[in-house]
Amino acid sequence: MASQQSIITLRVRGYHLDGYGHVNNARYLEFLEEGRWAYFDEHAELAGILHGGSVAFVAVNLNIDYRRAAVAGEDLRVITALADVGTRSARMHQEVRRVRDDKLVSSADLTFVLLDTRHDKAVPIEGELRDVMERLVVE
Amino acid sequence: MASQQSIITLRVRGYHLDGYGHVNNARYLEFLEEGRWAYFDEHAELAGILHGGSVAFVAVNLNIDYRRAAVAGEDLRVITALADVGTRSARMHQEVRRVRDDKLVSSADLTFVLLDTRHDKAVPIEGELRDVMERLVVE
Amino acid sequence: MASQQSIITLRVRGYHLDGYGHVNNARYLEFLEEGRWAYFDEHAELAGILHGGSVAFVAVNLNIDYRRAAVAGEDLRVITALADVGTRSARMHQEVRRVRDDKLVSSADLTFVLLDTRHDKAVPIEGELRDVMERLVVE
Amino acid sequence: MASQQSIITLRVRGYHLDGYGHVNNARYLEFLEEGRWAYFDEHAELAGILHGGSVAFVAVNLNIDYRRAAVAGEDLRVITALADVGTRSARMHQEVRRVRDDKLVSSADLTFVLLDTRHDKAVPIEGELRDVMERLVVE
Repeated sequence: MASQQSIITLRVRGYHLDGYGHVNNARYLEFLEEGRWAYFDEHAELAGILHGGSVAFVAVNLNIDYRRAAVAGEDLRVITALADVGTRSARMHQEVRRVRDDKLVSSADLTFVLLDTRHDKAVPIEGELRDVMERLVVE
Repeated sequence: MASQQSIITLRVRGYHLDGYGHVNNARYLEFLEEGRWAYFDEHAELAGILHGGSVAFVAVNLNIDYRRAAVAGEDLRVITALADVGTRSARMHQEVRRVRDDKLVSSADLTFVLLDTRHDKAVPIEGELRDVMERLVVE
Repeated sequence: MASQQSIITLRVRGYHLDGYGHVNNARYLEFLEEGRWAYFDEHAELAGILHGGSVAFVAVNLNIDYRRAAVAGEDLRVITALADVGTRSARMHQEVRRVRDDKLVSSADLTFVLLDTRHDKAVPIEGELRDVMERLVVE
Repeated sequence: MASQQSIITLRVRGYHLDGYGHVNNARYLEFLEEGRWAYFDEHAELAGILHGGSVAFVAVNLNIDYRRAAVAGEDLRVITALADVGTRSARMHQEVRRVRDDKLVSSADLTFVLLDTRHDKAVPIEGELRDVMERLVVE
């Protein structure tokens, strides 16, 4: 059985940095996106909904705290879990932590909808989809 | 006299997109960063504080709404203004709008501190700095 | 009449840099891509071929010299022109120059094909297409 | 003993793509940069020269062939090796291959210098440095 959360690690490289020598704000969103794709890779029951092709994962809000700067050569862990399921949207909670001491570098809440791309509106989260998603929620 | 807000425009290009053919979430943060740099370019009184070299502009929170997808070839306007000044942090409000119809594509609030890099702590926003910043606030 | 070359300018920002405080190697390719899109925007006779939808601009080789480092705040000019037209591929020459003294920062040759996406093979550059492209070549 | 070449793998994600649904040209340079950092991580004898702080790895030319498009979900292998050592510059050869069938996606030659950042000139590749580098060359 798949864990309710997915964890990836990555190493900070030169091209992630900004002029202060710290990971640039925008790059964290790429780290978070990596984390979410890994989550979908590990939760085939959810990924199946997206890979049908007529449903898209669409972010509607991201709220991110930047807590600590990360520098070149540091290993970071990105932890991704489903935090809340509403009737039309749901929320993922993601954390970026330094591997060596587990200190929080950044944390984010991403609210998303599953968009029916043919009709351009959010798929209601009900029935079997709701069951699948609720089982994945980490309090 | 400089306006209280800065406006830049940019055209969406192929490398900004994701697999759905829409501007990727992370790219908006680069658009917003462009907007903030333009803001500093146009507000020398603020930029002077940063260019001394011992004070860094550091984001502590970003809250961004994704409202509409943007596609290749569209022209976007990024509007940046100071929205609020606290005692140790301040907040910028930024909007990304489609040029052709002014519809809102994305809006964001960025909370930042001015970090004294030698002592690694936030510069208190008081005295002359406070005066400069308060004059720039757009309600 | 459109000029045979296109020129755009851009300002180096924090998110373009690497750990040395210089524009990262990969970012130059985004600058060059901006230059090529501007070129197509300004040469409707060429862009029309691409916007039909069944022909894609596909890079097959890029040869880029990195001559000088560029730093935050510098204005760069990207110059794009068609340099050579073969029977199945063509070559663009692009230069990135510092605005203040016109010094060469980077120069690149990009060889591309026009790919017939339905049959997955390069469109022969002949007939009217050849005429259009040859008129644009800068020796 | 470290191998003469370094290999990393990565999975193509949505944010790597362009408007055609293929990995964007510029992203390959980030993949190649990942490969080079892994190479330095695995070859401490070379990395030591750079981490002293007064010597920087500076690309002077990149020649890259784009052979096949890569799409979302594909696993790619990046292979990095030293190909040639001159008196003032050296060359790395890098390949990006699809994991499932080992087909070549992209190949690149990167010519670089080791820059003495204090005097802004290339370090001569001689003595112990030459010995270290020559032992790493893959014909």
